[in-house]
Amino acid sequence: MEKYKRNERIGAIIKILADNPNKVITYNFFSEKFSAAKSSISEDVLVVKKIIENLEMGKIETVAGAAGGVKYVPVMSIEDTEMFLEEVCRKLMDKERIIPGGFLYYTDIIYMPDIVDKLGRIIASRYLHEKIDYVVTMETKGIPVALMTAKYLNLPLVIVRRQSKVTEGTTVTINYVSGSSSKISTMSLSKRAMKKGAKVVVVDDFMKGGGTAMGIVNMMMEFEAEVKGISVLLAMKDPEKKLVEKFHPLLMIERLDPMDGEVNIYPFDRIKK
Amino acid sequence: MEKYKRNERIGAIIKILADNPNKVITYNFFSEKFSAAKSSISEDVLVVKKIIENLEMGKIETVAGAAGGVKYVPVMSIEDTEMFLEEVCRKLMDKERIIPGGFLYYTDIIYMPDIVDKLGRIIASRYLHEKIDYVVTMETKGIPVALMTAKYLNLPLVIVRRQSKVTEGTTVTINYVSGSSSKISTMSLSKRAMKKGAKVVVVDDFMKGGGTAMGIVNMMMEFEAEVKGISVLLAMKDPEKKLVEKFHPLLMIERLDPMDGEVNIYPFDRIKK
Repeated sequence: MEKYKRNERIGAIIKILADNPNKVITYNFFSEKFSAAKSSISEDVLVVKKIIENLEMGKIETVAGAAGGVKYVPVMSIEDTEMFLEEVCRKLMDKERIIPGGFLYYTDIIYMPDIVDKLGRIIASRYLHEKIDYVVTMETKGIPVALMTAKYLNLPLVIVRRQSKVTEGTTVTINYVSGSSSKISTMSLSKRAMKKGAKVVVVDDFMKGGGTAMGIVNMMMEFEAEVKGISVLLAMKDPEKKLVEKFHPLLMIERLDPMDGEVNIYPFDRIKK
Repeated sequence: MEKYKRNERIGAIIKILADNPNKVITYNFFSEKFSAAKSSISEDVLVVKKIIENLEMGKIETVAGAAGGVKYVPVMSIEDTEMFLEEVCRKLMDKERIIPGGFLYYTDIIYMPDIVDKLGRIIASRYLHEKIDYVVTMETKGIPVALMTAKYLNLPLVIVRRQSKVTEGTTVTINYVSGSSSKISTMSLSKRAMKKGAKVVVVDDFMKGGGTAMGIVNMMMEFEAEVKGISVLLAMKDPEKKLVEKFHPLLMIERLDPMDGEVNIYPFDRIKK
């Protein structure tokens, strides 16, 4: 008789897969953990696949061969994605969020773990089947969403700093023009942070002119890295022409009244319909 | 006949609970989601509890009453915690990590989502049964571990900045003495970031003299907040006397040779045995 019942194995397999998104877990691992035959594990995985996919909680992919295994692909259903992004827009359009200078206060939203977890999951779903080595962001406010994106892609996060720090060893420092203020700023990254010739995805919380994103692209050139995509949570509709060409925002901000800061915020992909 | 088989409900309940650590999910929610009687859900939850607790993946707590429900308490077993922390120590003690000035380069480790997820889970387990309102950290390197701690406690994260930003509205700015360099620095936090009179846990990546932690404690006084605990990933053994009294490090760093930066790093709780 097997040590664990099918019920128990299935529950445990789901927990382990969900804790390790986008990572192949071998049949051997499960087989040893549950003292069960590989054929039993194979059957368990079929049930797991049915559960996860029928309830639209993601996808389960199996990898054939001697080192075969299974991985949880954390895609969110289109319906859940739309509902969630519309809800975030509603929260952001609260008039209480407009602060002196016409800025929108949204820090609390992007520091809420459950919200930023879903945002990271949505951003990650664009890159789940590409070969990427790192998720790159610039401090500070983009870090939570970039970390969650990295979690769902099962990749290390790289954080570009505003200043070089003694604890980072030799750094590469570049100057860039911040699009919104036309001020020259610096950004800095440890030479140890990335191997040469990597493929990266850039994730940030906000884009107006695209100056920071352009700075990160230039920084990546110093590391001979290829930028496979730029994803931002919020992008201003104006200026329409950004300093970077290809980028994907989850949400667009359109300023309605330049004086009082009133804005319209909507999911970017909604306009495609 | 019920829409989903027991197997399927159990798998889905585990996935939903694991995605929402430390949050009560009502029996009603599951009952509606799976079109199943509450009595069936009750029985499912017993199986879920058995699976999660037998395999030492955490605890399942049930809340009785009309608004009754169940929550996943993400404690890690003592054995898994010890094994994991010993492994992190081994990684940190790699001699390649010593950089000019005798500093230890560990940024890559605390930006790895799977590592920082477990570190956050271990820190969170100290506070799972306390009434806390926020997890507070200071930018930049502590953010990933603080975010993961906040995720497992199901709490919002608050990030104290080095400078006040126009996008943060009215801010409180204080000066503090950085313990290591004896330099006066500033830290800044939006008045919108926290409600008055909150209970908080402070989480950071590193402590030497405790100057930054003391600064955060003083900042919290400005918000009339009560600091219920200070957790750091790494603390230097010297100076033994820190500026804050009660803090808990996961790992201790003992400098072996002041010239070449060689260090011994070990789990703090190991010394209790």
